[in-house]
Amino acid sequence: MAPNTLKTNGDRLWARLMEMARIGATPAGGCNRQALTDEDRLGRALFESWCRALNCTLETDQMGNIFARRAGTEPGLPPVLIGSHLDTQPTGGKFDGVFGVLAGLEVIESLVEQNIPTTHSIEVVAWTNEEGARFSPAMIGSGVFAGAFDLEYGLSRRSRDGVTLASELQRIGYAGSRVCQAYPIKAAFEVHIEQGPILEAADMPIGIVTGVQGMRWYDLELLGEAVHAGPTPMNTRRDPVRALHTIISEVYKFADQFGPWARVTFGDARFEPGARNTVPEKVVVTLDLRHPEESTLAEMEKRLQQIVSTSAAQANVTGKVHQEWQSPAISFNAHCIAAIEASAQSLDLNAMHLVSGAGHDSVYVSRIAPTAMIFVPCKGGISHNESESAEPADLTAGCDVLLNAVVQMAVRVA
Amino acid sequence: MAPNTLKTNGDRLWARLMEMARIGATPAGGCNRQALTDEDRLGRALFESWCRALNCTLETDQMGNIFARRAGTEPGLPPVLIGSHLDTQPTGGKFDGVFGVLAGLEVIESLVEQNIPTTHSIEVVAWTNEEGARFSPAMIGSGVFAGAFDLEYGLSRRSRDGVTLASELQRIGYAGSRVCQAYPIKAAFEVHIEQGPILEAADMPIGIVTGVQGMRWYDLELLGEAVHAGPTPMNTRRDPVRALHTIISEVYKFADQFGPWARVTFGDARFEPGARNTVPEKVVVTLDLRHPEESTLAEMEKRLQQIVSTSAAQANVTGKVHQEWQSPAISFNAHCIAAIEASAQSLDLNAMHLVSGAGHDSVYVSRIAPTAMIFVPCKGGISHNESESAEPADLTAGCDVLLNAVVQMAVRVA
Repeated sequence: MAPNTLKTNGDRLWARLMEMARIGATPAGGCNRQALTDEDRLGRALFESWCRALNCTLETDQMGNIFARRAGTEPGLPPVLIGSHLDTQPTGGKFDGVFGVLAGLEVIESLVEQNIPTTHSIEVVAWTNEEGARFSPAMIGSGVFAGAFDLEYGLSRRSRDGVTLASELQRIGYAGSRVCQAYPIKAAFEVHIEQGPILEAADMPIGIVTGVQGMRWYDLELLGEAVHAGPTPMNTRRDPVRALHTIISEVYKFADQFGPWARVTFGDARFEPGARNTVPEKVVVTLDLRHPEESTLAEMEKRLQQIVSTSAAQANVTGKVHQEWQSPAISFNAHCIAAIEASAQSLDLNAMHLVSGAGHDSVYVSRIAPTAMIFVPCKGGISHNESESAEPADLTAGCDVLLNAVVQMAVRVA
Repeated sequence: MAPNTLKTNGDRLWARLMEMARIGATPAGGCNRQALTDEDRLGRALFESWCRALNCTLETDQMGNIFARRAGTEPGLPPVLIGSHLDTQPTGGKFDGVFGVLAGLEVIESLVEQNIPTTHSIEVVAWTNEEGARFSPAMIGSGVFAGAFDLEYGLSRRSRDGVTLASELQRIGYAGSRVCQAYPIKAAFEVHIEQGPILEAADMPIGIVTGVQGMRWYDLELLGEAVHAGPTPMNTRRDPVRALHTIISEVYKFADQFGPWARVTFGDARFEPGARNTVPEKVVVTLDLRHPEESTLAEMEKRLQQIVSTSAAQANVTGKVHQEWQSPAISFNAHCIAAIEASAQSLDLNAMHLVSGAGHDSVYVSRIAPTAMIFVPCKGGISHNESESAEPADLTAGCDVLLNAVVQMAVRVA
């Protein structure tokens, strides 16, 4: 360990994580603290109480994003931002998101405790509705902040139970007055559980996230003819399932060809009319394609189009590829990545480069600020699940790496 | 045409079909006359009024099956039975079922009109709830009659809207007093539209149905692990869809190997949790296997078990084959088949042998009486559809074949 390497207080971080996990705790050991519910209000209030105890300045913006600030010695300089989210999936875990927020708080407390001033201010932000479970789309708080969505769009999102994001912000008392808009930021960091199995399998405590995979969502629609399962000979059918299995098979094949970072997922399917003894008239299957490089993703899409068209023609059905959504591949900032690398090295922690397969608030933040992420292992790579689990030692290591990376960016060396 | 070949009145048959089709007529030209609805009551009453005009004896049994009888010269002998059903699918057509009942009526009227007595009585039966659309299972009226189900089971069936078959029989006034139970029957015939494309493609007016395919219904269940579509590498997934496409592909292959009468249909599928960006934990797909020979069907099932087990193992998921229902393959009676053959020949009508791919009331009736069926072409092989269509000339031909086959069985030649 380098002589001036700083450490956080892992026990305190863990205790706060466990205290936060009591809000919305589920019988199976997870958390249900969805965005802008009463539980979210309690979680926000708890977070704010901890920030106040550290004499942080608290501000809430129009999207309900909460900013806690410890002023730097030159408060006019752009701050270093640390952020993630406090909301969870309906059957979520104790770590996804909340770890990134409370690690930010722990960074500030460690600096306060160790009497270490920073030149740049440090801001910890809890973004609203990252999960997208209650209000779609996901990452709406950071998205409006970064200009990916306008404010009106963000506030008008409706939950499944029919209330708007604006009215729920009002209801729980977090419709803030600060304008939800980006400002100059020196660097932005987010520490998060990996939500995948790579670090655990490689026995690596730290993942240095160099970017986020591009994602494209499709509905593949196959149209044939509904006929009776009994009297209709096989060779006169226009059966969409004939095209479906070829498409799935070919898409898995091309996933292998595009290397270990290509991801293809058929998450849902619908057969219509969906009767046991009727050849389906229509089959719709969803496809999620991911790759860290946009050019490869474009090539995958081209191949997909060819596969659907060939397979549909062979089965004498009509095939259509509808793109439902996309998020371009993101490369994080080289300086921020270097700061994380140096930080891990100074702490003698093994680290590897990773590309995030999941979306995070940092995807939008990276549009307006130099950004990078730190991953720590989670048990079995499992997340969005009540059994989500992470080791205290790994969380502490991630928080230590965060602290030293932040200090590198926030302290001007004389 | 043989000198003593009898003919029916095709115009009258057609007019009755069109009059019946007005009851429950749908805007798209089909019929919605589901079992034991107000429309079914009207259809039954119309049928009975026509029977009364021919001085038929009418009786309704405990399952609401209606029997119209024209007495033979030796009324103690077992009758010849002609039957089908008046109920339709929710978006059904004008011919499925009702053609078989009104053709029976037309046979009686032709005999009355032409002053032709028969030795054996002739009974026309309209079976209750053949379609199974409102009450499950299908063919429940003929099924109870033939002893496949007991009466209590039949009467206790519940519709989707929660009422029992017994209460609906009471409500529409067709809870009859005649015991629903088989009695000696000389021969049973049913004429029906083919509901498949074979006769039309072969340009054949008459299909001589030698049996009904055996059917086996399965749920194939594939259990893997729900993981995030992004962070999870392809090679660590336990993805049920990997097994699914192999299973579908292999099952279609074996369908071809088992020859033109083998039928395989994947009618419905369900992915759980069914989220676009999550590898499904569970996939369930339904499979309908049919073949005219039980031994082949058993072999198909064995192959299916192997395929599911191999494909699941390859994909590192768990595969289960649940048999949900089966109906054994039926061979119709050789004498009845011969009577239909002779009848078609005497009428100079081209005819071919067929196996029915769909279930019919005759499947159950064949358990307790010598039985066979006559098929006539329907447009495009389409049925269970408002666009169901058949040519008057084909319906007349089918009715003529029925008449002469019935007479062969019902008249004892001195």
